[in-house]
Amino acid sequence: MKMTDEPDTALLPSGFIDLLQHEAEAEAQGIESVMDVFAAHGYERVRPPLLEFETSLLHGAGQALEEQSFRLMDPESRRMMALRPDMTTQIARIAATRLAGTARPLRLSYAGACILVGTPGREGERQISQAGIELIGVDSVEADCEIVLIAAEALERLGIADYSFDLSCPALVQALVQLSGYTGTRRAALVHALDRKDMAAVAELGGPVAAVLTALVEACGPSDAALAILEKLELPPEIRVHAERLMAVVRAIHARAPGLRLTVDPAEFRGWQYHTGVCMTVFARSQREELGRGGRYQAQGEEPACGLTFRPEVLLRAARPITLRPRVYIAPESQDSEGAARLRREGYATVAGLDSVEDLAAEARRLNCPFVFVADELITL
Amino acid sequence: MKMTDEPDTALLPSGFIDLLQHEAEAEAQGIESVMDVFAAHGYERVRPPLLEFETSLLHGAGQALEEQSFRLMDPESRRMMALRPDMTTQIARIAATRLAGTARPLRLSYAGACILVGTPGREGERQISQAGIELIGVDSVEADCEIVLIAAEALERLGIADYSFDLSCPALVQALVQLSGYTGTRRAALVHALDRKDMAAVAELGGPVAAVLTALVEACGPSDAALAILEKLELPPEIRVHAERLMAVVRAIHARAPGLRLTVDPAEFRGWQYHTGVCMTVFARSQREELGRGGRYQAQGEEPACGLTFRPEVLLRAARPITLRPRVYIAPESQDSEGAARLRREGYATVAGLDSVEDLAAEARRLNCPFVFVADELITL
Repeated sequence: MKMTDEPDTALLPSGFIDLLQHEAEAEAQGIESVMDVFAAHGYERVRPPLLEFETSLLHGAGQALEEQSFRLMDPESRRMMALRPDMTTQIARIAATRLAGTARPLRLSYAGACILVGTPGREGERQISQAGIELIGVDSVEADCEIVLIAAEALERLGIADYSFDLSCPALVQALVQLSGYTGTRRAALVHALDRKDMAAVAELGGPVAAVLTALVEACGPSDAALAILEKLELPPEIRVHAERLMAVVRAIHARAPGLRLTVDPAEFRGWQYHTGVCMTVFARSQREELGRGGRYQAQGEEPACGLTFRPEVLLRAARPITLRPRVYIAPESQDSEGAARLRREGYATVAGLDSVEDLAAEARRLNCPFVFVADELITL
Repeated sequence: MKMTDEPDTALLPSGFIDLLQHEAEAEAQGIESVMDVFAAHGYERVRPPLLEFETSLLHGAGQALEEQSFRLMDPESRRMMALRPDMTTQIARIAATRLAGTARPLRLSYAGACILVGTPGREGERQISQAGIELIGVDSVEADCEIVLIAAEALERLGIADYSFDLSCPALVQALVQLSGYTGTRRAALVHALDRKDMAAVAELGGPVAAVLTALVEACGPSDAALAILEKLELPPEIRVHAERLMAVVRAIHARAPGLRLTVDPAEFRGWQYHTGVCMTVFARSQREELGRGGRYQAQGEEPACGLTFRPEVLLRAARPITLRPRVYIAPESQDSEGAARLRREGYATVAGLDSVEDLAAEARRLNCPFVFVADELITL
């Protein structure tokens, strides 16, 4: 606390930040570039509100996010509302209600801010941006593949070259753990061992599925080697179908985009709460955090869906820097000139001189302008 | 309540809406068009967070919005946070803290969503968008004028032709009411009469300032007639300075943009809570609601500032309709063709056929595509 009555207005709650000039522009331009790639592939933008009734927002797949949602009382209805921690469930809601009558497959895109409660004691962003696509009403290898290829095109558009997609199928691992028959602490120990990819512990704790589970952990890596292991696995038919689908998606992506860097992690399952099929995580070599993630799930009414959500904050750390409009200081008497208007059309930012000054060049430099426009002439400083 | 366990997920709290495909795209494009005009004039984008500590957000000029702000407890700091009902105070905070060392005049722009508690029993939007500019660190006629002219250019960019700016100076009226010496119910009655522009009541209740106040009400209208009345008014010097400034801004706008439709309402003061100088409200003939508003105020540390905030929802109702990418259904075997990529570059949206179908044309129509691309040929249906 300061000793005056003035609050320290510069302080923001942890996890909330101001984006300043260059960063804010980069975020906005980056999101619009990604959204433009989505639009070019027929994905139409929807914009749900920042908050909804909690019964609606945290329903179905949204339940997984309950602990991450801030609640507010609606003074109108006296019902609880929640700030969205994620937009995917909102898109599923729109698809199942307002767009129930629209032809399938339904392709929707979205971009916006989400608010998370955060994890106590852990510094982390609590306002995050999302930009994503959902392909709703179709369950096929082609659909899974389309999501990956469009996401890859968006990454290329941003100038991110060193990206890779990691494919997994959490439902496969979950079904195998189920098959082990273990419950309680024994099951928890097995899950923990899998999560750490501790082969010895998985072998020891896996019981009837120990061999299969260790093979899955071993298969983790570049897609060719992973597929070789997956193909040879002996799995019950109802679980085999998951492995087959994962392999089919990998092969389809290879066929359509041979250069795309693809890894497979068939033992991955943590942090996937409502996904039912192939899932993907996007990485860039330069970034510790993932750039986005997505996968197959069931939207409302058990409608099949597959989608992917980018984290624009992380995307932009990996993206090609944006080019800002070069700034031109406009001498006061030239403010309304056709020349100044032409400079704006040509991509300059014109900074109007409001007072007459003695030294135009000094004033331009003070205002961070490398150009001066005076007497219909553009002068480079 | 429905009789099943399923919540009615389609229901949103009053004042919150989903923007569907076309509307969401129009909003995003409209905001980016406006922001591009701002950027062309050297206004740099900043992006403050959706919520802040209430001591910061509702400090100073923000106090006026206290009743319209939802609060949340921050579980980290145990301090109260507030969802922003307005972005202007956030921009003032950034200018006074993180950008305190940046050269003045400081030109900043912003766009984002705000959340209002709303007025009980009144249907109204509770999530609103804002897009605006602030010109900070300079107090001059030229600065007031710049804000109006850039706003006008943004309206032109959106194809809004029938707009007008209404200029006022709430501080002038407030100073005159102060000069009346009235307090309590008598003052309230005078303010109410002024608000209704009830000349008879103003004349009766105005006491020592009755003549001046009725003249101000009379002056309301097209700027030429208003200035003729304002010029002749006898005002104490400390109040005269407000009238002089208002007249100077009107004349400067006329000189720089003779075609700009300008009205003056020197008796206007309601709804302006922290403004200290010339204020402006933007109207379009086709819209009942105002498109935006702004004016001169004191930012943190009594730094002079003038800004204007558009309401994108209203702007877009008045704007030229956007053109969406024409949709082309791509036959499954042509998905990865150079032809499909070329169509995307040319501005089409390509909708990939995921399954082979017998009747391509019928499938295209079902998916709302007036074009089919097959065997490297674009066919118009």
